[in-house]
This record gives sequence, C-alpha cells and structure tokens, in this order.
Amino acid sequence: MTKPHQLRWAIVAPNAEVEKWRENFALENPLVLIEEGDQVKDPENIDILLLWKHPKGTLKRFKNVKLYYSLGAGVDHLMDDSSRFASVPICRIVDPMLSFSMSNYLIFATLHHQRKWKKFLHDRKEKIWDHDGLAERHISIGIMGLGTLGQDAAIKLASLGFEVSGYSPSKKEIPTIKTFYGEELSAFLKQCNVLICTVPYTQKTHQLLSKKLFDMMQHPTYLINVSRGAVQVEKDILAAIEKGQLSGAFLDVFEEEPLPKNSPLWTHEKVEMTPHNASITNPKAGVKQMLKNAEALINKKTLTHQVDPHKGY
Amino acid sequence: MTKPHQLRWAIVAPNAEVEKWRENFALENPLVLIEEGDQVKDPENIDILLLWKHPKGTLKRFKNVKLYYSLGAGVDHLMDDSSRFASVPICRIVDPMLSFSMSNYLIFATLHHQRKWKKFLHDRKEKIWDHDGLAERHISIGIMGLGTLGQDAAIKLASLGFEVSGYSPSKKEIPTIKTFYGEELSAFLKQCNVLICTVPYTQKTHQLLSKKLFDMMQHPTYLINVSRGAVQVEKDILAAIEKGQLSGAFLDVFEEEPLPKNSPLWTHEKVEMTPHNASITNPKAGVKQMLKNAEALINKKTLTHQVDPHKGY
Repeated sequence: MTKPHQLRWAIVAPNAEVEKWRENFALENPLVLIEEGDQVKDPENIDILLLWKHPKGTLKRFKNVKLYYSLGAGVDHLMDDSSRFASVPICRIVDPMLSFSMSNYLIFATLHHQRKWKKFLHDRKEKIWDHDGLAERHISIGIMGLGTLGQDAAIKLASLGFEVSGYSPSKKEIPTIKTFYGEELSAFLKQCNVLICTVPYTQKTHQLLSKKLFDMMQHPTYLINVSRGAVQVEKDILAAIEKGQLSGAFLDVFEEEPLPKNSPLWTHEKVEMTPHNASITNPKAGVKQMLKNAEALINKKTLTHQVDPHKGY
Repeated sequence: MTKPHQLRWAIVAPNAEVEKWRENFALENPLVLIEEGDQVKDPENIDILLLWKHPKGTLKRFKNVKLYYSLGAGVDHLMDDSSRFASVPICRIVDPMLSFSMSNYLIFATLHHQRKWKKFLHDRKEKIWDHDGLAERHISIGIMGLGTLGQDAAIKLASLGFEVSGYSPSKKEIPTIKTFYGEELSAFLKQCNVLICTVPYTQKTHQLLSKKLFDMMQHPTYLINVSRGAVQVEKDILAAIEKGQLSGAFLDVFEEEPLPKNSPLWTHEKVEMTPHNASITNPKAGVKQMLKNAEALINKKTLTHQVDPHKGY
C-alpha cells in the first residue's frame, strides 16, 4: 500500500515558511520530502501542494495535483487564484493551539478596553493614583463570524461573565450565547458595543468593516478585528473614530501588511495594533493533520478540515 | 417581629465610602438609616457596625454591637484592631462581581506577560512590524491562596487552556488544577513560572513575598500580586528583578497606598501597576447581603460569609 512519503509533496510559500515546514516534517516523518514548488522540473507529477501567500497563477503548472493544502486557517489566497483546478479538494489547518492563541488575544483586547488599560498607563506616567477611576465599562460583546475560532472565543468570553452575542450567515445555536443570523445583521449590531470580527475573507466579507456597517451600529462601539485586512476599510475606521461612532479599534490585520510606515494607524491614540500575530499556526499540529489527510487521500477516505469552495471556508 | 430597619446601623469609613453605601441602602431599603459612627451620641445602642479603614481603637465605644461588617472582601482592618470585642461575629462582603473583576484582572495581567504586550508597544513606537516575534511564552501559573477569588481565577485560567496549579495552607481539591498544601510550598514554587498571589492578609502572610520566598522559586518567575501591600516587601521585589529571579511584577497593591511619588515602582521598566483597583466591591450586591444577614441576626439564624477570627478570613 502506498505510504504518505511515496506521494510527491511540494510547497509554494515565503522562504521562512518553507524552512519552518520542512523542519517540522523532518521531526514528524523524515521520509516525507518537501520539494520547492518553483524548482520542480516535473510539476505534473506533484500530488500534494502546500500553499501560503503563493504568487497568483502558480497553480496551473501542477496539472495532476490531488490536494491543495493551506498552511493556515484562512484559504482566501487559494479561493481568489483563478489558476486553481476547481475539482481538486482544498484542506486547511485547524490547530487547537490556534483557538488558544486567538481566544486569548481577543480576551486581552476586550479587557484592555473594558478595564481602561490606556488610562492607567497614562496615569502612571503622571504618577496619578486614581483608585476610584476604573468604573469598569459595561460592555456587550458581539462576535461577527461563528466559525471554529469565533465560537471558541464566544464561549470563553461568556464563561468569564461577559454578555456575548454572535452573528453568522446561517443559523447557529451555541449555549450561553445569543445568536443572530442572515437578515438580522442590523439587529445584532444595534445590541452590542464591542464588535469582534472573526469572519473568513470571502467575496461577501470584502470591505465589510466600512462606513455602511459603522452607520448601522450602536454608537459608540469598540472594534476588534482579527480576520483579514481586506475585510476592513481603514480610512472608514479612522473617520468613524473621528465621528465618535467607534470609541476605538484594536487591529491585528491591515489592508497592506506589513503596515506601511506612513499609515496613521501606527500613532493613532485610539488604535491598538499588533503585527498579524493574534494567532500563529503551530507547525507541529499542522504536520500531523497533513500526514493524516495524505493517508485519507491514499485510502480514498473522507478528508478532515476540507474547505467548501462555495462558502470559501 | 423586628425588621432590619428597626436595628441601629452605623458606619465608620472614609467620606466617599459613607456616601456610596448610604445611596445604595436608600435604593435597596430606604427605611434603613445608616448613622455616622463618629457622630453617634449613644454608641452603646448601635447593633450593626459597617467598617472600612476605620481608625484603630474606634470599636470600643460600641459596647453592645451584635455584628461587625467589613465593607470589602478583606477583614485585616478588623483583625488587627485590639478594641474589637472578640465575641462579636464578623461578616464580610462576598460579591460575585468581585470574582468577575478580580479574575479578569488576573487574566489580563497573565496575558500581558505571556503575549509580551510591552514588546509590541515598544515595537509600535519604532514602527517595527515583527510578525514572527511573538513566540508566546510557555507559562505555568501557580496561584497562592485558594479562597473564593483564587479558586475562581484558577478555574478560569485553566479553562482558557493554561497549565494552572494552586497552593493553600490546608488541602483543597479543585478539578483541572494541581493543588499543593501545607509543607509543599517549596515544591509548588519550583514548578510554576508565573506566581499569582491572592492570599488574605494575616499574621502568617505578613511580608510573605520577600527574599526568602523569591530564593525558593523557579527562576525567573513573573509575579502578580493582588492581595494586600503588607504581603509584599517592595525592596525585595526590586532586588529579585535585579538578580533575574523575577522576570517582572504586575502589582495592584503596595506597602503604602497611595504609592508615594518617590517610589521607584512608578517608573520601573519591568513593573506594571494599578491603583488597588483589581476588584472593587459592588455596593448593590453588598447591601443585599447585609440586609439578609441583619434578618439572620434578628432570627438567630446562621450568618452567611462570616469570618473565622482564628484563620483571619
């Protein structure tokens, strides 16, 4: 019977990523050889293609590929590449550590706002002891996007004692969380004052966080975005802060990454930012999943964490 | 039958506290009159005495008091006042919002350390985009003091995916948490690298966080103290940071409060601080508990949240 290392594997990703994944495959199964996609002489013989930020159009060379693997939770880099063969299944990495990191990032961002951390940093600089100055903000958290990561954050925030609601395109029921779906977006936005965005990037979520949505919200709302930069319109975020529609924003993703040095976000008083590191895939768990799916492919079994190309996630 | 408002209530506390509690009694039961302790002409007729930061020696005037009530979770201000009548029961406020605030403070402090928030604040100032610079710290959290607040924090931190252990003088079993007790303090300190201190202030915990304990710990450990200032020796904390025994400290309490302007803690690069506001009693819940206990007193029923004066909590 064929073994995973008898398949031909190739990777198309930035150099640092290539190194990282090779090292982790070597630890898990040293027999698996990961070739570099752009150096492969006979791309038509590659079976599994590992992809992260690959140049558009790369995919058409790999005519007989049997599985595309996204080296992260998102698959937007695959969905919008027209050189992809639509019949080839796509899998993505669903790493339990991803939820650990992402939910903890979201809890940190929420508490940073709710406990007015910035005020106390400022007080400290001035040596001000304002014991009664906390008056924790009463917040009602709305999570837009109830996929694996959104649900995990919703459940954890609720267990910490917060009022949490969620919105998703189709109906989802989650104990301890009030859920909205479909046409109820406006009702959802009106009842929360901290908006956490965990949607996948698709045609439907392109520039979702823009003036139109900010006009619909409760004012002011605090915005936390950990999805994708292309989901937000940064000039609209800045305008909404200016108008008082947003009390501030905590952003991990940006329209252009790395964030250009001339972006006003770097120094904006009401914005917190991190360099797209809310949650970084743990390669060890990822490699295990890829090897398992390689066996499923060989044995014609059901793949795990396969993406529905119509939904885009 | 006697009603709570037919008892004589007096308060000895700073002015702002007196106002706050009176307002909240007025909302809950406007018939209850709260007299100011130092203006009462016939202190021997007072039944219930509400106390917060009262001057030592105040208590002896109230010869026939039937219940002392601490207006917070701590009772150290009562325990070390020798003018107290030992036969009079002491109750304290156990506010569910206290656990909400305290646990969220501790989670914030833990994530602030684990996710290297300070590094990213510094990077931002320099417009550095260090996507791969996170490498979240592997931490093992040890909670010293497993009372109501310590247990709540322990359970919540474990549910977020952290490795959590706890230490208490007597044996306590808590699912999902490894517990140590009695003589096992040294073993407990050796196996964690984030130490959260939630002990009550008693003779036994006086200056507990000092050189002797820091010498016993795993090095380096990150220290978070939300108990009482008198539990810590600030010069020993600074020396332990200097020696690399502590990687830093996140402090809500101080030997002298407000923290004196000349304290080096205000500006220390490896210290975070807040003005003793990790968790502030919510008067509404407190008033409800006091009214309930007043009825229990009248009906000679068991008091809730009564303090064991031998333990001091």
